[in-house]
Amino acid sequence: MQVYLDNNATTMTDPAVVEAMQPFFSEIYGNPNSLHKFGTASHPALRNAMNQLYSAINAADEDDIVITSCATESNNWVLKSVWVDHILNGDKNHIVTSEVEHPAILSTCKFLEEQGVKVTYLPVNDQGIVEAHTVKSFITEKTALVTIMWASNETGMIFPIKEIGEICKEKGVLFHTDGVQAVGKIPVDLQDVHVDFMSMSAHKFHGPKGVGALYIKNSQPLTPLMHGGEHMGGRRSGTLNVPYIVGMGKAIELATENIEEKMASIRAKRDRLEDALLELPDTFVVGDRENRTPNTILISIKGVEGEGMLWDLNNTQIGASTGSACASEDLEANSVMLAIGADNELAHTGIRLSLSRFTTDAEIDYTIAQFKNAVARLRAISSSYAIQKPTKGGEALECELHHH
Amino acid sequence: MQVYLDNNATTMTDPAVVEAMQPFFSEIYGNPNSLHKFGTASHPALRNAMNQLYSAINAADEDDIVITSCATESNNWVLKSVWVDHILNGDKNHIVTSEVEHPAILSTCKFLEEQGVKVTYLPVNDQGIVEAHTVKSFITEKTALVTIMWASNETGMIFPIKEIGEICKEKGVLFHTDGVQAVGKIPVDLQDVHVDFMSMSAHKFHGPKGVGALYIKNSQPLTPLMHGGEHMGGRRSGTLNVPYIVGMGKAIELATENIEEKMASIRAKRDRLEDALLELPDTFVVGDRENRTPNTILISIKGVEGEGMLWDLNNTQIGASTGSACASEDLEANSVMLAIGADNELAHTGIRLSLSRFTTDAEIDYTIAQFKNAVARLRAISSSYAIQKPTKGGEALECELHHH
Repeated sequence: MQVYLDNNATTMTDPAVVEAMQPFFSEIYGNPNSLHKFGTASHPALRNAMNQLYSAINAADEDDIVITSCATESNNWVLKSVWVDHILNGDKNHIVTSEVEHPAILSTCKFLEEQGVKVTYLPVNDQGIVEAHTVKSFITEKTALVTIMWASNETGMIFPIKEIGEICKEKGVLFHTDGVQAVGKIPVDLQDVHVDFMSMSAHKFHGPKGVGALYIKNSQPLTPLMHGGEHMGGRRSGTLNVPYIVGMGKAIELATENIEEKMASIRAKRDRLEDALLELPDTFVVGDRENRTPNTILISIKGVEGEGMLWDLNNTQIGASTGSACASEDLEANSVMLAIGADNELAHTGIRLSLSRFTTDAEIDYTIAQFKNAVARLRAISSSYAIQKPTKGGEALECELHHH
Repeated sequence: MQVYLDNNATTMTDPAVVEAMQPFFSEIYGNPNSLHKFGTASHPALRNAMNQLYSAINAADEDDIVITSCATESNNWVLKSVWVDHILNGDKNHIVTSEVEHPAILSTCKFLEEQGVKVTYLPVNDQGIVEAHTVKSFITEKTALVTIMWASNETGMIFPIKEIGEICKEKGVLFHTDGVQAVGKIPVDLQDVHVDFMSMSAHKFHGPKGVGALYIKNSQPLTPLMHGGEHMGGRRSGTLNVPYIVGMGKAIELATENIEEKMASIRAKRDRLEDALLELPDTFVVGDRENRTPNTILISIKGVEGEGMLWDLNNTQIGASTGSACASEDLEANSVMLAIGADNELAHTGIRLSLSRFTTDAEIDYTIAQFKNAVARLRAISSSYAIQKPTKGGEALECELHHH
């Protein structure tokens, strides 16, 4: 059995999405900006895809949703253009973000600091989230932008976007949220929250890799990151990636229709998995379940180094992660766990399991069994764990014996 | 019969390319940056695609080819990062380009002018190309970058990239070329020319829309346009678009293998079409055939407004263009023709026909007949053309009669 539990890194493109894209490679292939029938033939499908996007996040007619190549582009776009528009060519000098943002935000902030921008990296509480009052206390008259993620890729924890949005509105500060881990996983209603800009990415909700979007409230100004042939109303140039736009529309529709039912189904499997893994001694999971995306578990297993665990799971055909896939080639401590206050040793033991609507009960059963075996095997050879015995029962040892 | 003659705007994705991409949507779908087998399963195909790209343009091992979302991104990247690296944080202040670059260059230059950068827009000669000595005479000690296209999207004219590269090398100035219309159409050998950066785009050589690349000589420094998770060795972040990278690799291999033979075949069809259309009185084509990409004709038809001609061709299922598709929604005079020195009236009469390796002889025959009919119809109702009779024969009138 193969079990893919790394859906926060990327998802399988839904076969129904692949099917929807097919006609736009070799049949309806014209440039949508061309005046002839080869170009205009794609317009109904593009309009339909845009409608699917607007509908899924409840964007208003007066808002813009601009197609980009990924959320990394959307994130870079907002931060760098706010820099150009309001700092380089304005009287602001400050950006507020959090310590636990995606590297697309954090690395861009580092770049902006090199350009003289002041950046405040807000700490998170023991739930791994930024509290709204913390945001409020760091906004100054020089603040050009607050950028805080909607949900964490690593922990699944959901941030108080509604409250932060209200604060930004009240203070007259632009608010961007990286919505990558929220869209398609939990309800996202942009009429219910005050958000100026939101980034999203198709491949996190079973659309293709390499297409995303930026939501822009009230079509407000923002200097383009991609200047050129005035595509997308001049907001983002580059020939439209028709197949992927159609695919993203289909994917978001499939992800968000009856989302409460989908969430309940995924949550049930996630909770069963989490309950079973927490039976292991000296394990803990980051963040309350109720305030987490329903597909995510970040579990820490004392005495078991994350990469060793990954390797062991991989050998049993289970795909998991130590955190953000972007940095997974580095053997670093989980930065979110460090931000929460875990010690360095524990932060090296984080394993992220992220389910999808395609995850089956049989896969959960298999994962529980293999995970427990792996923990037993690795703890048996762990020098750090050997020193102190498990505090609850002898389950780890039993699994180990049972396996052989 | 449907005839697609707008291949400089975009091309049909080769069905063989679509086939090569298929497994990477729903089968091998892991994030290539993930450590597990779902991620690493894509590595052989990615390596193969990169090899295909290096081989097709003869890049050296020490050069970088960085995947982007399109040539518009590649162009924006070079210009904006040279601005940040050498102007904002350096002692240069000047960029040299031409009047006839793609909007992705020209609009970015306009943006940079707003940021205080001095930009020289070099004129073109009556062949529509920038001469190397012109470039030389405008480089100053403050020049950070020369950016000149390899071949024109509108005329197909090939620019003296080797000579310009030598001048830039001699002067110690960075040289970028927009290679979008050259790669896959004519031999591009980056060991034979001195180019620091070259942009390319898959959808111009029968790959998918929404993926491109930037060639970077000797892997030299260039601040990223997309900061983030350190993909592509930190040069361009964002989850890798595995299907399209595989597709671009396949597409460039198909386009460049036996390129001389392919060029000869396309050129023969193009020349036959061009000869036939030039039989019409008061028509002329921009630029010598010998120095043009073998697939392109920009023809001017006195008394026939370009958009009217497009519409007429469209009604006979022929897709053509008045020039760059990017600006095709505007009824503007062809800017390249104006740059060459055509008067405003003539510049409104340009029609671009761009063939591909999929263009057939039967399609050429059909196009010749329909094109002549359209010219006759439109000249018959043209107030400007009615004043002065055709200077050569009465062919237009004959066609008109023949058609009815």
